Amino acid sequence: MHLPIELDRSRPEPLQNQLYEQLRGLIINRRLKPNTRLIATRFLAEQLGISRTTVLLAYERLIAEGYLETRPAVGTFVCSVLPDQAPAPLVNDNRVDDLPQTELRPPLFQGTTPERVTAQPQQSLIDFWGGPDFRIFPLKTWQRITQHILESYGRGISRPPPSAGIDSLRGAIADWLAAHRGIVVDREQIVIVAGAQQAYNIAARLFLRRGDRVVIESPGHTGATFLFESLGAVQYPVPVDDHGMLVDQLPPGTTALAYVTPSHQNPIGGTLPLDRRETLIEWARSAGAYLIEDDCDGDFRYRGMGPPSLKSLDPYGLVLYTGTFSKTLGAGLRLGYMVVPPDLVTATVAVKTLLDNGSPWLEQTVLAEFIASGEYDRHLRRVRKTYMERRDCLVGALRLFFGDVRLAGIDTGTYVSWRLSSSFPPAPMVQEVARSRGIGVYTVSEDHASGRNDYRYADNTLLLGYSSLEERQIRDGIAGLANALHNHRRVATG
Amino acid sequence: MHLPIELDRSRPEPLQNQLYEQLRGLIINRRLKPNTRLIATRFLAEQLGISRTTVLLAYERLIAEGYLETRPAVGTFVCSVLPDQAPAPLVNDNRVDDLPQTELRPPLFQGTTPERVTAQPQQSLIDFWGGPDFRIFPLKTWQRITQHILESYGRGISRPPPSAGIDSLRGAIADWLAAHRGIVVDREQIVIVAGAQQAYNIAARLFLRRGDRVVIESPGHTGATFLFESLGAVQYPVPVDDHGMLVDQLPPGTTALAYVTPSHQNPIGGTLPLDRRETLIEWARSAGAYLIEDDCDGDFRYRGMGPPSLKSLDPYGLVLYTGTFSKTLGAGLRLGYMVVPPDLVTATVAVKTLLDNGSPWLEQTVLAEFIASGEYDRHLRRVRKTYMERRDCLVGALRLFFGDVRLAGIDTGTYVSWRLSSSFPPAPMVQEVARSRGIGVYTVSEDHASGRNDYRYADNTLLLGYSSLEERQIRDGIAGLANALHNHRRVATG
Repeated sequence: MHLPIELDRSRPEPLQNQLYEQLRGLIINRRLKPNTRLIATRFLAEQLGISRTTVLLAYERLIAEGYLETRPAVGTFVCSVLPDQAPAPLVNDNRVDDLPQTELRPPLFQGTTPERVTAQPQQSLIDFWGGPDFRIFPLKTWQRITQHILESYGRGISRPPPSAGIDSLRGAIADWLAAHRGIVVDREQIVIVAGAQQAYNIAARLFLRRGDRVVIESPGHTGATFLFESLGAVQYPVPVDDHGMLVDQLPPGTTALAYVTPSHQNPIGGTLPLDRRETLIEWARSAGAYLIEDDCDGDFRYRGMGPPSLKSLDPYGLVLYTGTFSKTLGAGLRLGYMVVPPDLVTATVAVKTLLDNGSPWLEQTVLAEFIASGEYDRHLRRVRKTYMERRDCLVGALRLFFGDVRLAGIDTGTYVSWRLSSSFPPAPMVQEVARSRGIGVYTVSEDHASGRNDYRYADNTLLLGYSSLEERQIRDGIAGLANALHNHRRVATG
Repeated sequence: MHLPIELDRSRPEPLQNQLYEQLRGLIINRRLKPNTRLIATRFLAEQLGISRTTVLLAYERLIAEGYLETRPAVGTFVCSVLPDQAPAPLVNDNRVDDLPQTELRPPLFQGTTPERVTAQPQQSLIDFWGGPDFRIFPLKTWQRITQHILESYGRGISRPPPSAGIDSLRGAIADWLAAHRGIVVDREQIVIVAGAQQAYNIAARLFLRRGDRVVIESPGHTGATFLFESLGAVQYPVPVDDHGMLVDQLPPGTTALAYVTPSHQNPIGGTLPLDRRETLIEWARSAGAYLIEDDCDGDFRYRGMGPPSLKSLDPYGLVLYTGTFSKTLGAGLRLGYMVVPPDLVTATVAVKTLLDNGSPWLEQTVLAEFIASGEYDRHLRRVRKTYMERRDCLVGALRLFFGDVRLAGIDTGTYVSWRLSSSFPPAPMVQEVARSRGIGVYTVSEDHASGRNDYRYADNTLLLGYSSLEERQIRDGIAGLANALHNHRRVATG
C-alpha cells in the first residue's frame, strides 16, 4: 500500500499534524475506504522518512477520534462507520474508485501474537527460564556425525524426505521408547514432526472442528491452547493442583480432544498420579475424546520411573503421544515425534504431508545416528545429572534464604513452581522487583490460563527454571532475589 | 486395538474363514460397535501371525457383505447400519459395554492419500520426472559451509529459531529477489517456510473458511488443491491453455483465495502473459480475493526475462508470493519463503509460529551463507545451463523421432507438456507402453484436475521432465519410446 502523502518540513506545522490531516483527508474522501487495513507504522515511517513515533502519534489521534481502529495481531483499520462530523466526499477521482470492488477481507486469524507463544530467555543477567542449557549441546559429536553423514550419504539432502520421517529415526525412537518409557509400538506408529507444536496442529486437523470442545489444563501450555483458540475450538479449562489436572472436574458430554501434560504439568509442575490417569482415560472413552499426551519433559525424571504413560495405559487407542528433542537437545533442530494408534497412521501421515511434505532430511539423519550410536543415551545421562545438581542447588538456595518454601514439580522437568507465602508481595510484583535487579523469574500469567484464570494461586506462584544456569548463578540469583525482596515482605504475624 | 481373536491351524477350516467368522461374531455381538475403526490389516496380520493377504480377504468378505466399509485415506470401519440378517446380540459382557460411552470419532480428515501429493521418481530405468538432478547438488560447497557454520556458530543449533526465519536468510532472499525477479520488498516481508506446501497452509489459515471459494487452475498442482479440499473450501477450477489460466473464465462474485502458477503453469507449462496477469489482478481486487502466486519454477527461465511477477504488478497488496529452494537445490532442505504485503507480516508470522514455531536453524544459516557468498548464483547458472542443454536435447529427440511435435512450457521450468497428435493412442496407454519398456513418462491424471477434469486435452497430453536425466538417457529414452509406440500408432490419413 503506497499512500499519496507528502510531508513538508519547511512548513511550520509539525510533521505529526500534517500526517494526521492528510490521513484524515484520505479517509474522508474515501481514498482510504472503510475496513481498509492501514500500512504498518514502521513501513509508513520508512516510506515517508520520518520517525515511527510520529506515525504512531498520528494513528493514535485518528484512533481516538474514531477514524481508525486496531484489531489485535492483525493491524490498524479504517473504521466501518466514520465519525458523524466527517463531511461527505468532496473529490471522487481516478479509476480506483470507478471499478466495482470488494474490500480485501482482513485475515481470519484473530489469535494471539507470536511473542507469547515462544518462550525465550529474557534479557537478564541471571534468568531462571527453564529452557535447555545451550552450552551443554553436544556440538563436537553433532559436527562429527553431520560431517560423516554428508560425506557418506550427502545426496540425500536434496531428495524429498518421506513425510512420516526418515525410517532409521522412526526405528531409533521406537527402540528408545520401548527401552526407556515402557511404550512398545511398531516404528510405523511413529511420525516425525516439526516439534511438539506441529503435533498439536496434526491432532487438531484430525479431530477438531470449529466449535468443538477441547479440554485443556488451566493454567496450561500456551503453544497448544493458543493454537486451539485460533482454530475456533471451544476451550474447556480444567483446574490443576500440585499433582496435575483435577480429573474430577472433567466435563460431561462430548469432547473432541483433550490436551494434557501428565509428566510435569505445564506450568505448575505436578505429576499426574496413576489413579487420575486411569480416570482420565475412562473419561476420554466415555466422552469420545482423543487425548494428546504431551510428554515433552519425559526425559527429565529425577526420582524413579514415575507412573506409566497414558499411552501405555490406554486400551482403547485414544492417546496421541507427543515427544520432542527440543528440551534435551535443542529447539533449533525442530524435531519431535508423535506416537499414534495403528489405525491413525495413514491419516496422520496424510495430514503431515499436506502441512509441509515432511521434515528436513539432515537433522533427522544425524539424530537417528546420534541415537542409534548410544550418544543420545550418554548425552541424556550427562544432562540429567547436571540438571539434577542444579535443581538441588536451587532448592537448597531457596530454603537457605526463604526457609520452608512450598515447591511443586521438583521430581521432573527443568523448573519448579513456588507457592509464595502470604508474607510476599504478589508474584507479578516479585517479578518486577527481580527484573530491576537483573534477575529473571516467571509467573503464571494470564497467558497460561488462556483467558480464564482458574488457578487460585496464580497471584502467588513463581516459576523458577534451573536447567540453563550454572550453580553459582543460581545461588547468586536467589541471594539477589532475597535481597531485593527484603523491604517488600511483610513481617509474618504470630 | 487388540481384538480377542484366536486362530487354530489344527482345525480344517481355513484361517481366512476362521478370521471372517470371529470378526463377524464380534460385530454382531457389538464387541466391535458400529463406526469403530478396525485395526489396519498389516497390524492385525502381525498380531495374529498370519499373512496380510489372509486378513485382507477376510476384510473384503465382510465389506462385500455389508459389515465393514472403507473410508479412503482413513481406514476400515464397522458399518453404522449392519446387514438385516445380523441377529440381535447374544452376549452382553464385561465393563466395556456397561460404561456409557461414545464412539471415538473417526478423523475429520477425509482428504486424498499422501502418495499423490509428493512427486517422486518412478522405478524406471529412464524416468522423465522433472525433479532436480540430485547429482548436481553442490555437496562439497554445502559441506564446507555447514562445517564452518557449526564451528563458528554451532550453539545456534539448539536455540529456538525466530519464527519468521533467520534474519540473514530473509535479507539474502530480499536482495536476491530485488536483483533477479524485480521484486523489491523489505526483508521483514519475507517469511521463511517449510517449502511452498507450508505457504499454502499459511495462506489458507489466513483467508480460507470452510465453504469459502478458492479459485484453482485446472489442471492444477495437487499439493495445493488437495490441501484446500481437505480444509473444506469449495474449489472453483478455471481451465488453462498453452498460456496458462484462461482468465476470462474467472468467476463473478466473492472469492476468498486464488492459487496460480503464472511462471510455468503446473502441469501444462504455459507462461501467463502480461495482459492476463493484469486482468487477474483486477479480478482479484473486485472479488476481494488474495492471490497466491506460486513461483516455484521462477529460477528456471531460459529465454529472456518473462513478464513481471504478479507481485511486482500488484498495486493493491493482495498477492502472496511463494518461492522455494526445493527445485534449485533440493526438497530435502524443506525451505521456501513467502513474500507478503507489510500489513500481513504480523499475522503471517503468528500463523507460522502456531504451525511449527519456526524452521530449523542449520539449513537456514547454511543457505543464507550460500546465497550471500554468491555460491547460489554460480550454482544456478550452472544448473540453468545444464537444464537448458537437456531441454534442447529432449526437444531435438522428440522432433527427430516424432516429427512436428506440439510442445508447451519450453521456455520455463523443468519439463514440457506434449500434445499428442491423433495418430497416438491415449496418453495413459502411452504411459503404460513406456513403463513396460522401463521408461517413465507422465500424464495429466485426474489428480491434476482435482476431481473435475476440465482439461480437454488431458487424454492426449504427455508430460516429460528433462532436468534429472543426462542427455544420453534422454536420447535413449525417446528412442525407446518411439520404438515402443511403433506398433501402437495409427497411420496418419491424408
